[in-house]
Amino acid sequence: MSKIKSISTVTGHIYDVPDNNDEDRLISFVNSNNNKKIVAIQGLGFVGTAMSLVVANSDKNEYAVLGVDQANKESYWKIAEINSGICPIVSSDPLLYEFFESTRQKENFYATHDPKAFSYADVIIVDINLDVTKIKDNSGNLDSFDVPMTGFKKAIELIGQECKKDVLILIETTVPPGTCQKVVYPIIVENLRSRGLETDKFKLGHSYERVMPGPNYMNSIKNFYRVYSGINNKSANSVEKFLKTVISTDEYPLTRLKTTESTEMAKVLENSYRAMNISFAIEWSRFAESSGVDLYEVVDAIRLRPTHANLMYPGIGVGGYCLTKDPLMASWASEKFFGLKSGLQSSVKAVENNDKMPSYCFNFVNNIIQNFDKKLTRIGLLGVAYGPGIGDTRFSPVEDFYNRISMQFEDIKCQDPYVSLWPELNLKIETSLESFLNRIFDVLIVTTGHRDYLKNNSIYELISKVDQEMIIIDTVGLLDLKKLPKHYSQNKNFYVLGVGHKKD
Amino acid sequence: MSKIKSISTVTGHIYDVPDNNDEDRLISFVNSNNNKKIVAIQGLGFVGTAMSLVVANSDKNEYAVLGVDQANKESYWKIAEINSGICPIVSSDPLLYEFFESTRQKENFYATHDPKAFSYADVIIVDINLDVTKIKDNSGNLDSFDVPMTGFKKAIELIGQECKKDVLILIETTVPPGTCQKVVYPIIVENLRSRGLETDKFKLGHSYERVMPGPNYMNSIKNFYRVYSGINNKSANSVEKFLKTVISTDEYPLTRLKTTESTEMAKVLENSYRAMNISFAIEWSRFAESSGVDLYEVVDAIRLRPTHANLMYPGIGVGGYCLTKDPLMASWASEKFFGLKSGLQSSVKAVENNDKMPSYCFNFVNNIIQNFDKKLTRIGLLGVAYGPGIGDTRFSPVEDFYNRISMQFEDIKCQDPYVSLWPELNLKIETSLESFLNRIFDVLIVTTGHRDYLKNNSIYELISKVDQEMIIIDTVGLLDLKKLPKHYSQNKNFYVLGVGHKKD
Repeated sequence: MSKIKSISTVTGHIYDVPDNNDEDRLISFVNSNNNKKIVAIQGLGFVGTAMSLVVANSDKNEYAVLGVDQANKESYWKIAEINSGICPIVSSDPLLYEFFESTRQKENFYATHDPKAFSYADVIIVDINLDVTKIKDNSGNLDSFDVPMTGFKKAIELIGQECKKDVLILIETTVPPGTCQKVVYPIIVENLRSRGLETDKFKLGHSYERVMPGPNYMNSIKNFYRVYSGINNKSANSVEKFLKTVISTDEYPLTRLKTTESTEMAKVLENSYRAMNISFAIEWSRFAESSGVDLYEVVDAIRLRPTHANLMYPGIGVGGYCLTKDPLMASWASEKFFGLKSGLQSSVKAVENNDKMPSYCFNFVNNIIQNFDKKLTRIGLLGVAYGPGIGDTRFSPVEDFYNRISMQFEDIKCQDPYVSLWPELNLKIETSLESFLNRIFDVLIVTTGHRDYLKNNSIYELISKVDQEMIIIDTVGLLDLKKLPKHYSQNKNFYVLGVGHKKD
Repeated sequence: MSKIKSISTVTGHIYDVPDNNDEDRLISFVNSNNNKKIVAIQGLGFVGTAMSLVVANSDKNEYAVLGVDQANKESYWKIAEINSGICPIVSSDPLLYEFFESTRQKENFYATHDPKAFSYADVIIVDINLDVTKIKDNSGNLDSFDVPMTGFKKAIELIGQECKKDVLILIETTVPPGTCQKVVYPIIVENLRSRGLETDKFKLGHSYERVMPGPNYMNSIKNFYRVYSGINNKSANSVEKFLKTVISTDEYPLTRLKTTESTEMAKVLENSYRAMNISFAIEWSRFAESSGVDLYEVVDAIRLRPTHANLMYPGIGVGGYCLTKDPLMASWASEKFFGLKSGLQSSVKAVENNDKMPSYCFNFVNNIIQNFDKKLTRIGLLGVAYGPGIGDTRFSPVEDFYNRISMQFEDIKCQDPYVSLWPELNLKIETSLESFLNRIFDVLIVTTGHRDYLKNNSIYELISKVDQEMIIIDTVGLLDLKKLPKHYSQNKNFYVLGVGHKKD
């Protein structure tokens, strides 16, 4: 055994990271599922784990799933927990746990760190991360960014070294447009050739997921539109056939695009669009606050227009794994792969604006606190996840916000119903709202719009029991002033980002 | 009679601009409508004329409408034509002409240049233009811009000098947020005071139109959601009462916002949003062309997502009166009226990007022509209006495109079913597609996406009769390659902006 330990961010358990192979158990899993096709899924993150569960719960129960991830500090605990019956993801979607439990019953989902897994697979789905590195100046402006492809290439190498010659490789990872043709295809061909295998039998396709790890997590894979493509017709047909067995394509018909570049572009385009819409709302928040306009009211009025129904509300910023990087990835590919000189400037600018939002939000909050007529020191944050109903803290805007506010104030406590340990900050988080609001706060800041807070009006009831003066700052537009205790309407004690002081 | 002449862009008729007042006819019109309330509408452009017709055709037939515009070269012909029974607007909406005809029958719509009209009015609606001036550098970048308020202030003065003390003044003009409170209100108060009248009886409100002068022109006023506000409760109530009599508010409920700043902001916000979405599509067009991706196919696939259903297609650029200026107006107000230091940078950038689109489109077209294996000289443009089904050429992106292409090529002809005279360029335009395609062209460029071209497949039939080699460049994604004669699929003769050479 190696000395590396891997700590679960879900249970807090500590696992020894193995340094041996996993061949025996792999063979035994494959043998006991010999009436099923083997699907290997590379990457056990929020997408890969969910995709594993959806595939393992296909309507005709025709697949056994091998989840493959790395034996390292960050990832190994997921392998260990899946195999011990613990779902490595926390979500408000009950279907996640049902699906997980069902794979336990059927014994058709096994997780491993051994790349040998790929040698048994009829289908290999790539769901690993591909990150963007950002370099910022002191004011938070984006100096430069890069998409280091080394890790991704190595992962594809692992597949090429093991895969069957007629495997279907389906890339779901968000990649710079051009990657399937310019990166994946040559690596697989080269590896097959050096293994003395034919290089024209494998199928390579791209189909991106639209996973939303909130209350509709599983259905965002199983019951939603999919776009797909293949590097040739045979590949596209093969992807189509596979997707039809795992996704409800009768209700959500598949869309085939002509080239892998097209689907790769579609993915980053739709996320860039979202990022830009958020960036737009941010800019107008400032205008609204300075002119005494309630931006929520304005957005509600405009959203009645069908063409404007997706206009975004103001907020603390955009987080999560996708919107914070996909526009940059797109711009990078446009320059590096296709020679577009200036890249995609507005998309890059959107990310830059969005990245600055937590700092703007901090200034908004700090201004209120500093200008208050008495000293406010005890601060509570409601929500650390990057979005409502999600236990994911990756690139959460609350992280940047927390880092800033904790430089100014000493006494800061955090609560989140879905996060007990904040891995990026190594902070223990209170999950019970009731216990949390039993503490005394001078300022309560809503930082994630979890719907749970509103269930049975729980947050309003708990706040009404607070007999200490407490100002509330809502950075995500969750709370309804009318439901707060009356004194919030009368005094200067309720503030909303994108509105300013709200009295109504 | 003065020596100034005013030429109709609809009929080509020339009218002498009068320099006398119009009191006699005004009094006679008011007297013959003494059982009706008088609504004066200031500004007889695409909004004011349409609004006049909607008000004059209210369900209960309770209004007589006085259309007021200026006795000058640009505007007087509209007054003259309305009073001679000629609708001063060309549109694909048959309801426009029905409404106009009905006011002729009812004799409840009269146009005048005499501001005395305001003295008879119970309701005054302001629909005049408020322009933004742009100063650009040689590369088309926006150096600076301004919103000169002098003309607007003078127009409000005219109202203040004449209006009844208890009039309802409803601003529909798109104005910099803050204008009702900071500009209109003080001017009216000052004028009433100097006329010795009470200053607390008049009502002032703001409600913006969402007029789309295409096939749904009249219904875009009468049957659509409206947002409104007043400078006080009494004003807001008064606006509400009035709007309920002219708009189908049962089906499209009104939305009241708290302040006039809020509705003023809503208007420029929604147009900025649209402008930004267009700017976004433009940027990705370039990426698509450089990577061989068919952006139309990609956008179609993405639009299946309800949250992305308003994603825009690529195109020659954004035109019309609103989207090209409203984001700048908003940014201007955020700085001038509310001290926001950096203004609204992304909104400004969107206008700048959009303004450069015709130049990008010209390069796209010019590249194709210059790289073609034979010399192409005879060029035909289909469409000069700024959008489909519209006879409006104001700020049409085709204008900039035309100016560029006509510097490079001598033989350029234009066709548009809705425009017989292109006022900005003082060019006669062929309205018949058939006559137009009887000419011989080397290059046919689709520059406005008029649906008329597709009616009964007329354009495809006419193109199939062309026996000369003709390349087609579609800058707005109107044509379907499959419906074009077969040789377009086989040869390099069909190009689409946002796609490049299209063979399928």
